[in-house]
Amino acid sequence: MKKLDEAFAILAQIPIPLSVKMIPLEESAGRITARPVFATYSVPEVHLAAMDGIAVRSEDTLGASEQSPVTLPDATRINTGNVVPGEYDAVIMIEDVWIEGTTYTIRKPTSPWQHVRPAGEDIAESEMVVPSSHRIRPSDIGALAAYGVTEMPVLGFRAGLIPTGSELVLPGTKPGPGQVVESNTRMAASWLTSLGGECTRYPLTPDQPDVIRSIVQKVAKENDLVIISAGSSAGTKDYTADVIAELGEVLVHGVAIKPGKPVILGKIGNIPVLGLPGYPLSALTVLREIATPLVRISGIPVPEPGIISARLTSTLHSDAGTDEFVLLSVGRIGPSWVATPLSRGSGVQMSAVRSNAYLRIISSLEGYEAGETVPVTLNVSEVQAEESILVTGSHDPVIDHLAELVRREHVELHSNHVGSMGGLIALKRNDCHAAPIHLLAPNGDYNIPFLEKYLPREEVSLICVAGREQGIVSREGFSLEDLPGRSFINRQKGSGTRMLLDHELKLRGISKDEIPGYDREATTHIGVALAVKTGEADAGLCVYSAAHALGLPFVPVAQERYEIAIRREHMEDPRIQAIVGAIRSPRFKEVLNNLGGYDDSITGVLRQVP
Amino acid sequence: MKKLDEAFAILAQIPIPLSVKMIPLEESAGRITARPVFATYSVPEVHLAAMDGIAVRSEDTLGASEQSPVTLPDATRINTGNVVPGEYDAVIMIEDVWIEGTTYTIRKPTSPWQHVRPAGEDIAESEMVVPSSHRIRPSDIGALAAYGVTEMPVLGFRAGLIPTGSELVLPGTKPGPGQVVESNTRMAASWLTSLGGECTRYPLTPDQPDVIRSIVQKVAKENDLVIISAGSSAGTKDYTADVIAELGEVLVHGVAIKPGKPVILGKIGNIPVLGLPGYPLSALTVLREIATPLVRISGIPVPEPGIISARLTSTLHSDAGTDEFVLLSVGRIGPSWVATPLSRGSGVQMSAVRSNAYLRIISSLEGYEAGETVPVTLNVSEVQAEESILVTGSHDPVIDHLAELVRREHVELHSNHVGSMGGLIALKRNDCHAAPIHLLAPNGDYNIPFLEKYLPREEVSLICVAGREQGIVSREGFSLEDLPGRSFINRQKGSGTRMLLDHELKLRGISKDEIPGYDREATTHIGVALAVKTGEADAGLCVYSAAHALGLPFVPVAQERYEIAIRREHMEDPRIQAIVGAIRSPRFKEVLNNLGGYDDSITGVLRQVP
Repeated sequence: MKKLDEAFAILAQIPIPLSVKMIPLEESAGRITARPVFATYSVPEVHLAAMDGIAVRSEDTLGASEQSPVTLPDATRINTGNVVPGEYDAVIMIEDVWIEGTTYTIRKPTSPWQHVRPAGEDIAESEMVVPSSHRIRPSDIGALAAYGVTEMPVLGFRAGLIPTGSELVLPGTKPGPGQVVESNTRMAASWLTSLGGECTRYPLTPDQPDVIRSIVQKVAKENDLVIISAGSSAGTKDYTADVIAELGEVLVHGVAIKPGKPVILGKIGNIPVLGLPGYPLSALTVLREIATPLVRISGIPVPEPGIISARLTSTLHSDAGTDEFVLLSVGRIGPSWVATPLSRGSGVQMSAVRSNAYLRIISSLEGYEAGETVPVTLNVSEVQAEESILVTGSHDPVIDHLAELVRREHVELHSNHVGSMGGLIALKRNDCHAAPIHLLAPNGDYNIPFLEKYLPREEVSLICVAGREQGIVSREGFSLEDLPGRSFINRQKGSGTRMLLDHELKLRGISKDEIPGYDREATTHIGVALAVKTGEADAGLCVYSAAHALGLPFVPVAQERYEIAIRREHMEDPRIQAIVGAIRSPRFKEVLNNLGGYDDSITGVLRQVP
Repeated sequence: MKKLDEAFAILAQIPIPLSVKMIPLEESAGRITARPVFATYSVPEVHLAAMDGIAVRSEDTLGASEQSPVTLPDATRINTGNVVPGEYDAVIMIEDVWIEGTTYTIRKPTSPWQHVRPAGEDIAESEMVVPSSHRIRPSDIGALAAYGVTEMPVLGFRAGLIPTGSELVLPGTKPGPGQVVESNTRMAASWLTSLGGECTRYPLTPDQPDVIRSIVQKVAKENDLVIISAGSSAGTKDYTADVIAELGEVLVHGVAIKPGKPVILGKIGNIPVLGLPGYPLSALTVLREIATPLVRISGIPVPEPGIISARLTSTLHSDAGTDEFVLLSVGRIGPSWVATPLSRGSGVQMSAVRSNAYLRIISSLEGYEAGETVPVTLNVSEVQAEESILVTGSHDPVIDHLAELVRREHVELHSNHVGSMGGLIALKRNDCHAAPIHLLAPNGDYNIPFLEKYLPREEVSLICVAGREQGIVSREGFSLEDLPGRSFINRQKGSGTRMLLDHELKLRGISKDEIPGYDREATTHIGVALAVKTGEADAGLCVYSAAHALGLPFVPVAQERYEIAIRREHMEDPRIQAIVGAIRSPRFKEVLNNLGGYDDSITGVLRQVP
């Protein structure tokens, strides 16, 4: 198994053979010039008036003054943009001219070439407008059009993408058991298009070596780069490497990266071939870490992403010898950037959707400790990353709807589901902007006693999202009393929902040992409902909206106070203000009513600790 | 005349009525979601094996160890991605199983749900994938396809662009005297397309009120935003405001911005109408400072550009009361960003092409002094700005070709033509990375005596570009001796070419008073040649390549040493190394030979001072 840098050095010997294409100037924004482009004439080509006024011979104006006005022997009216006739060498503004019929009198002299736009002021014939390898911008297009350019030579390449795997179905078809929706070539096509590729996606190809061989052969003839995407099942049916070896050469099979290890780098003739692993995040990592640099070294200047320093909120272990890439949500809290790792499961595409950055743990390291400052690569602009707000704690489906409401105000809400206690700890460490919590204290109050205990002497504000109903979700309408002997799906330790369950079980004298599956954990309400729906468990405790979303019966257990805790020093942050504003908006009450199971009478109420 | 902020506040009352369009998912990268998008099924929908191995009931594995292996009563072979049958709750890796026929023996127990990808691990049915106002990325497309989404609701608007002006000709037509190539609606269409607009450019419209009125009426019916672009001639034929007033309302006519003052903001029905000034940089400023924020407040989250602090290399005066925007070349020199203002002529489109940033001088200020640190807005990414190198000093056409050669190595050469002495001063102030100079000292040597005098005790390296021939350019083959009595075009004070002229005139005993136009200045060799070509002057002094480019006779006067001066501390900078490498490359010798008039025998020679 090769290390990433070694593997790439081998692949870099087979750059993509770029092609040069003439495309209409108007369609060239964002593309890369293949050659320098020169002006074919000068702009302006002749001297033009830069003001409305009269064209004059400057020598005629010498000596003019308030005391001795000069009536010009020869001058002519001229407007901005008009050609200055050859016999004149200056323009006098109309405001400085006394006109009687065709007689022009002036009271001050002009210097030669005043208010004249000289020929070639903008550009002279033969001068270079843009060099090659230049990313064309709309303002360049205006200039190039003015200089007579109507077509641009741009760099590109043809990429052929082959989805393989007998278990694949097309997007739009609901996958049956064991089927997988073919999404990787769509992601890859979109990715490569943004780098200047002209992408062709070929039909779904079953796991049959002969079929794969004939399609790869055809695609290699028709393209400058071939991407063979495997189905997500590895196992016994992996023919990609054999086919590449038959038709060309496998340069590297397996690279020490995570995710993305099973990648294949090869060539057929003089064109590079990539075997993309089936797991979506593996495929994404290969596109970003291998395909993109390949495009770059082939001659297309792909923009480099921004890098910032951020404090990591949790410890990340990684195997020495492997370059591991971890997707992150980053946000700026006060003066420093904070980075929260997302799920590392290579099938969890939502990690990519949620992420605005990633971390490379280089192969010589075994990971990073929580609290370490690490170099983080943004996959959005830094300005957009500044818009993000880290919300860490208890999960509720309304948080997504809140994200939706604040999005229009340029706030990007990143939620991280770690339960209420996890939220409290994150808030204590300044690892998040806001922590949604619902922690029932023995005195019957929610949240404040926990803040007083775990964040003593810290000033915290609590904004109430809603009173919300928790209850038993099941397929058969079970209540809490029915739980003994039923297979259960619980929430993770430290979640308010689990603490509520324990409290309610104790009230009813039910022991956790009577409930099989008490130790099985989901991290979201919808995860609990889904486990029930799929039959993995008979019952769970969750909010009404989650049960309702999956069409499952719900038997209420308790109403609780779901609040967001925010350090008081951050309350004036416009991003926080946007969240508070959204919670108090009529739109949000509508959302609560539509979802069901929420009491909006306490929505938006502010409480202060201490 | 309204100030920019006031004018925009008025326009903001008439947002663009955005439309929602369903487009194929594959084509949605870069577009903005109009609504949140939800998962219609869970992924995975059932439990899947995360490893190749056997599916087991975890309770059957209890007690297994090296000493007491367990042969499982019930288990089945399973590959990664296969469905875990309902009766099993864990997967054991194939490496940990001893297989005999259909008998599976293990030597350690497994916990429930080990190596199982639980249903909903990625996303659960009904969960929000992306909120509205989200810019869709290729990685989102992969996820959305996997979740069954095939079409995306995206925000857009229809923009209708009308070029007006009887002097306009279409790009590709060489403009005759007084004609102007219509480029502004092309720039505007490209600009607005990048913001999500669907742009239609309407035909060239002459300066006739009736014609303009009927086309504007039609365009306002067919679009959500109307842009009326004036020809570059203002003057007597400006009917745009009248037409808008007749069909709707002129909200603001004239905004205190520079360039861009004559802009018109209006409405027809409920759609906004912008009257774009004719000068290209005025049009660009209005697109950036008015149209873009209008799109943003209408609901499309246009990315905000990055802002950096940079030291200004020259003083900029500006009228109080006016917001002035100055295009800049910025580059990082050592630890600090340096910003060089580009030509402020509003017809100089090359300033936009050359710029990578701009400065807003707000209306309460009268400008900035050279050396002040100012907030600068980038119009490229910060990473791309880091690639730029500021080359300030004497101009030569080969500098553009050098820019071309280093561009492929991710170096963006920004040249600023201020003459050799200007280059020396910029180098002294650390206002540039490199200064091309050709200064003849009385002792016959070039450049070093000047560095010793003006940058005493500074360590500077000189890399020779070429020996180059300067000579007299004319239409009639004049030599230096023919200059007396001929109309001349000179170079600016402090330019090496002007100093060479003075030296050569003195040698021949010719007085500058004998040469009409001695005080007339162009800033580039090609500018000199162009003035001769257009008949503005009879003769000038320039390099062979400039005369050759415009097909003019050239009579040699002297060969000089054209070198680039670089502070020694910057010699190891990879961008400088790229330039040195390019100068020494065989490709560059080819360039010199093709251009003609250069002696490449000293090309690439390094000299050190002191």
